[in-house]
Amino acid sequence: MAEPPFRQLVELLARLPGVGERTATRLAFFILESEPQYASLLGDELKDLHHKIRKCDRCQNYTTTPLCDLCSDSRRNDTELCVVARVPDLMAIERTSLFKGRYFVLHSLLSPLDGKGPATLETPQLMERLSDPALVEIVLATPLTVEGEATALFLTELAKRSGKEVSRLASGLPHGGELEFADHITLSRAFGGRKKLS
Amino acid sequence: MAEPPFRQLVELLARLPGVGERTATRLAFFILESEPQYASLLGDELKDLHHKIRKCDRCQNYTTTPLCDLCSDSRRNDTELCVVARVPDLMAIERTSLFKGRYFVLHSLLSPLDGKGPATLETPQLMERLSDPALVEIVLATPLTVEGEATALFLTELAKRSGKEVSRLASGLPHGGELEFADHITLSRAFGGRKKLS
Repeated sequence: MAEPPFRQLVELLARLPGVGERTATRLAFFILESEPQYASLLGDELKDLHHKIRKCDRCQNYTTTPLCDLCSDSRRNDTELCVVARVPDLMAIERTSLFKGRYFVLHSLLSPLDGKGPATLETPQLMERLSDPALVEIVLATPLTVEGEATALFLTELAKRSGKEVSRLASGLPHGGELEFADHITLSRAFGGRKKLS
Repeated sequence: MAEPPFRQLVELLARLPGVGERTATRLAFFILESEPQYASLLGDELKDLHHKIRKCDRCQNYTTTPLCDLCSDSRRNDTELCVVARVPDLMAIERTSLFKGRYFVLHSLLSPLDGKGPATLETPQLMERLSDPALVEIVLATPLTVEGEATALFLTELAKRSGKEVSRLASGLPHGGELEFADHITLSRAFGGRKKLS
């Protein structure tokens, strides 16, 4: 349909990840054919989203209050700090229930080609967290991509300057992974990081 | 993330066709991590959608004006009326450039189990179109589903009462269709509708 309000909606929907123009058109027709109340509610939530949700003052996790639930929880361990790139990564770690320390969300990774140098990461909030006297170990949980690895390397330097221990998530074959189908780098890392069995 | 504004957005997005909770969460994070202007624009378009887009007074196609582009186009043929279930169906037919008549969009199909009986279809708009003295042939282009076929049957009766010719889109193997993989009903119809080659 060529009507401008419809076309504009399709264009905006097509910016969503995994949504091409064909899917965007289908979604727009679904919305148009649904009860008007649905479009209105969805519109309200979208317009309010960035007003209602903010970044936690301490760890930059998304929250509706100055401090997020994880930072406010006194049962968590202040000696460990897990640094992640994005909030969905934090959520994935929380789902394992293995880590009981604190988090810090970077919301960015080093990517010099995109103009994201160390200055974008070295924020006052991060420096404050790294210099916390209670903190002993920093767990670097940035992704195992080029940008994630570069960021981990840079954070290792920062952490060493603060005199803290640093660790990085293990790299190797995923659970259920077949050697036959593993890529070269993953297999090299699995070999390099092999553990002695006693 | 368990924050209510985020959870509500995820719930609303998960109502979209083909979008489960996992995809909805990914979309919501994408929106949250994008420039706030994107959420705001998308929210505006959604809230305005049903105010800006209405149904054409004559054929019920979506339009921003009382009469849609197709109904306003004097070059189109008033003797043929193609009845479709949804606007995307009309668009699909228009893309073939084969039909030059007028349209009527039902926006509904007979579905007694869902409480959609003949009364939901027998609208004053449809009756007015069917009784148009200029009209000669009605092409029934409802889908080849149970509901679409039931609707076509019902419309055939209505059209006959108006003394118009009625036709139905041909049913058979699709272009490129392999007999081996065709379902029973499609193959039966392809056989039943076979054409003599001279």
